[in-house]
Amino acid sequence: MNKNLNHADKVIRDLNVYNTYFRQFRKADVYLKDGKFLYIDKKSGNEINADIEIDGKGRYMIPGLIDIHMHIESSLVTPESFCRYTARNGLTTIVSEPHEIANVCGIDGIRAMIDSGRKTPYDCYYAIPSNVPITGPKYETSGGRITCEDMLELKDEEGIVCLGEVMNYREIIEENDSEVARFIDFVHDDEPDYPLEGHCPELIDLDLAKFLYLGIHSDHTTHDLEELKQRFENGMFVQLQDSMVTQEVIDYIIENDFYPYFSFVTDDTFPDILVKRGHLDGIVRKAISLGMKAEDAIYSSTYTPALRMNFRDRGVIAPGRLADFVLLDDVDTLHIVSTYKKGECIYDQETVQKDHGSYDLNGQFEDTVRSRKLNEDDLKIFVEGQDRIVNVRAMKINPNNNRTDEVLIQMEVKDHELLWKDHDVCEMAVIERHGRDNHIALGFSVNSGIEKGACASSYAHDSHDLIVMGRNEKDILNAINRVIELQGGIVVSCDGKIKAEIALPIGGLLSKKSVEDTAADFVKVRKAFDEIGYLHFNNVMNFTLLSLTCIPTLKLTDRGYLYTVTMQQPLLFEEIK
Amino acid sequence: MNKNLNHADKVIRDLNVYNTYFRQFRKADVYLKDGKFLYIDKKSGNEINADIEIDGKGRYMIPGLIDIHMHIESSLVTPESFCRYTARNGLTTIVSEPHEIANVCGIDGIRAMIDSGRKTPYDCYYAIPSNVPITGPKYETSGGRITCEDMLELKDEEGIVCLGEVMNYREIIEENDSEVARFIDFVHDDEPDYPLEGHCPELIDLDLAKFLYLGIHSDHTTHDLEELKQRFENGMFVQLQDSMVTQEVIDYIIENDFYPYFSFVTDDTFPDILVKRGHLDGIVRKAISLGMKAEDAIYSSTYTPALRMNFRDRGVIAPGRLADFVLLDDVDTLHIVSTYKKGECIYDQETVQKDHGSYDLNGQFEDTVRSRKLNEDDLKIFVEGQDRIVNVRAMKINPNNNRTDEVLIQMEVKDHELLWKDHDVCEMAVIERHGRDNHIALGFSVNSGIEKGACASSYAHDSHDLIVMGRNEKDILNAINRVIELQGGIVVSCDGKIKAEIALPIGGLLSKKSVEDTAADFVKVRKAFDEIGYLHFNNVMNFTLLSLTCIPTLKLTDRGYLYTVTMQQPLLFEEIK
Repeated sequence: MNKNLNHADKVIRDLNVYNTYFRQFRKADVYLKDGKFLYIDKKSGNEINADIEIDGKGRYMIPGLIDIHMHIESSLVTPESFCRYTARNGLTTIVSEPHEIANVCGIDGIRAMIDSGRKTPYDCYYAIPSNVPITGPKYETSGGRITCEDMLELKDEEGIVCLGEVMNYREIIEENDSEVARFIDFVHDDEPDYPLEGHCPELIDLDLAKFLYLGIHSDHTTHDLEELKQRFENGMFVQLQDSMVTQEVIDYIIENDFYPYFSFVTDDTFPDILVKRGHLDGIVRKAISLGMKAEDAIYSSTYTPALRMNFRDRGVIAPGRLADFVLLDDVDTLHIVSTYKKGECIYDQETVQKDHGSYDLNGQFEDTVRSRKLNEDDLKIFVEGQDRIVNVRAMKINPNNNRTDEVLIQMEVKDHELLWKDHDVCEMAVIERHGRDNHIALGFSVNSGIEKGACASSYAHDSHDLIVMGRNEKDILNAINRVIELQGGIVVSCDGKIKAEIALPIGGLLSKKSVEDTAADFVKVRKAFDEIGYLHFNNVMNFTLLSLTCIPTLKLTDRGYLYTVTMQQPLLFEEIK
Repeated sequence: MNKNLNHADKVIRDLNVYNTYFRQFRKADVYLKDGKFLYIDKKSGNEINADIEIDGKGRYMIPGLIDIHMHIESSLVTPESFCRYTARNGLTTIVSEPHEIANVCGIDGIRAMIDSGRKTPYDCYYAIPSNVPITGPKYETSGGRITCEDMLELKDEEGIVCLGEVMNYREIIEENDSEVARFIDFVHDDEPDYPLEGHCPELIDLDLAKFLYLGIHSDHTTHDLEELKQRFENGMFVQLQDSMVTQEVIDYIIENDFYPYFSFVTDDTFPDILVKRGHLDGIVRKAISLGMKAEDAIYSSTYTPALRMNFRDRGVIAPGRLADFVLLDDVDTLHIVSTYKKGECIYDQETVQKDHGSYDLNGQFEDTVRSRKLNEDDLKIFVEGQDRIVNVRAMKINPNNNRTDEVLIQMEVKDHELLWKDHDVCEMAVIERHGRDNHIALGFSVNSGIEKGACASSYAHDSHDLIVMGRNEKDILNAINRVIELQGGIVVSCDGKIKAEIALPIGGLLSKKSVEDTAADFVKVRKAFDEIGYLHFNNVMNFTLLSLTCIPTLKLTDRGYLYTVTMQQPLLFEEIK
């Protein structure tokens, strides 16, 4: 039984309305009914009655922004807290991939995220985490594990819309029986339209073809231009994150008119960046600043992401689509005045207030750092045999990206102890914290820039075991033990004192605070990272990726060193031949 | 468990391969595995072994054509017969809307069509008929009826991919409880991504908005340019059938670069047209002849229809997509050398043979013309009262389109009989034939051009009651009684003799012959239509639409005359005031 369509709930008069197919603004009055657009009236006639009349003041109306590849956990807050805040960024739909929480809390963690997402003012959808853990117990210890059967169960749950980034891209292109390979087999038979999202940095030519052969048709990772071209040539849907919004890439998109084939995405956004530069809106602004027409950048952050996710009901301002929209003062600066979800205002710049609320996942997952405190003995590297020089393995940090390379450093062994402090290195430890065996793996890093003190974190991709790195035992112990005391957090210690900390008590990943308050804490932590000398342009992020087993080349997990390309596990040191 | 991707089933070397995003051909070798594209190798390397090597001879490879709006019944053959033939037209996927058979045989007819479609060399999908019957028992008598519950049942059956054209477009935009309105309510809640296909000629402005508000986002009917523009402006997916492939429309598409927002479709194709001008390939050729670049026309007959139907697995030549493709000798003439479905050749111009086979729907629906034969008394128009002149209502046929207008003709009544043969008119009869009441409605037409004889058909949109029209009782009776004898068909009688006939014994709609043999019969029928003088450019089609209750303005059904816009039922004649 359909409705009386001669009556609208609301009309907003005097707008410049974005037209998707024409990629242009046009003057119109817009009628809304039951959360949908009813009529875009270009003649300013009075054909329908409306209960409420609103003066649009000549503002620009664009569809609500849609981010289809991102991880809420990167912002270190709960979905509820995240979505309440980011209404100001023009978001009205997101697809978040919750593999961080899944690595700690398993399927229950995912369900708690979905539940929290329901308490938000806009549509917070989820992707099924496809690689939890990213490798396996031989290589790292996670708290949670998502099997093929879990994925199949999740697929049918409300709020789940796609398979999240398939990250075992080198493994899955060869014959294998990984959980996600089994899941994809099921999906191929049952539902060939189901979106399977990819993650395949550096994959080209035949290897890329093999990955695509599995039906995985998108990628959001960082590429050079040749890699990017290959993705377009092979019919992939490209998701451009911040690192890909470069002059070269924007020029390439413009030249080829490739707007229908990509969308902007955020992937990971730390809370201080979120507050300072915005979210998807910030990336759209960046593209505009690099010469993309605003009307084109809007297209690829509203229409194309909706299309990729089969969201036929949104992404366009047209009759019958959800009335998800943003009003702008100015198009080129994308200055957001207000945001509407299903016709209701969820952000207004004039009435918005600071949020100092407290959020949780129904009180769950607040005891997930199951490690005893560490002591000096835990950090000692015992070497059997006589005094001598050995080759010690270290990760070389690259201050411009998140790649790590292997270096070997000759160090002296004296009385069975490795004298590492004679060298310009940091000692590192990764400690199993999910209540299995508390195993501690030790290692070294060079080139971080750290000159003093130590940093530690329970947020450490992807298994989120505890990670610590520093120049001396005292600060290393002080930092890591404070993380354990907090039941999760990121901590910097210097000269034996805690210099800055952020508490992440939910799963050791998320703050209980609002975005604003979390960002304020995080700013202090980032400043402390700077002060101890960590040089990387995004140092906290870089630190949390030193145990991530899907990016090249040498990483340290709770099981020790791992060559992530060959999946071999080299020792901490070796004899000089 | 995925497969060994270092081994292909087939490689076709030396091809010019169509690239969808670039809308260009590029030289490459193409590897196939298990019915999918595995690798498009532009370097002509030998990276993978293949069991079979094929020389592509420099031919042009394009994705298989996809027609998402058509009715197999229009070609008067079974799905099996249709698809076997049309492999030569480059088709590899169709979405057929079986409302003709549904109007005669109900849901069982639809299921029989699906079943027949499974015996074909390519994917023959179906749309759920949304308006069966198109009006209701007050206005016309159909054999079958599809309820909301039937639609919900069909929606979950294999091979059904969308809701077919919603044709009660004037009714459904006002509050109403039609079966399809109820169905759409269900779909909105359950599955907002489900494609709902529209049919809304002449609808513009607020009325069009109301139609879109229901979530129906496509239209394939005929429009002037302003109506077409409104469809694009409102974010609709436009389906261009033959009548819309005009210079004006093609110029408009080219000027606005609107390739992503439309596809070519065939809607209705009579068998002789199919054999002579082809199918979707013929429409693509026509667009090219009007100045559209072949590479662009290919895009909108492969990629965009797949997108509209959520067919993520096809429509692009890229790794992981179904290996549905066509090899061409020449791009601009679209000369088809061979067609492949899932990597297997289903048509080759060198080996193709004439088909003289016999097809049926498992022997079902061969007794659906449930009428007694007619006699002279049935055709007499009895008028009560004294001799006088009355105003007699007639349908004025327009030789350029399928619109009919009302005219009133003053005729003499003598001895209770209407002396219509003194006038340049044809008498018409529409006879209920689904076994209800055999009711006969009489009427008149002018302007058909018919000078002698009569034509009759059991194929008569949408209820497919029997229709007959002619200049004298003898030929009228001869024609209609032969249709009844044949248990369905289209027949022309002249001077008391059958001049031509085509038997349509399956549901009174479909021939049991192959496309070639059906076309041969049909050519004779069309020639006979020409010979008795029927002037319309597509006379047989025009004749079968004279009882169709969803096109303007005056039609004749088995219940009598109907104004199709106002849904009033005027009398055959009225007194002169």
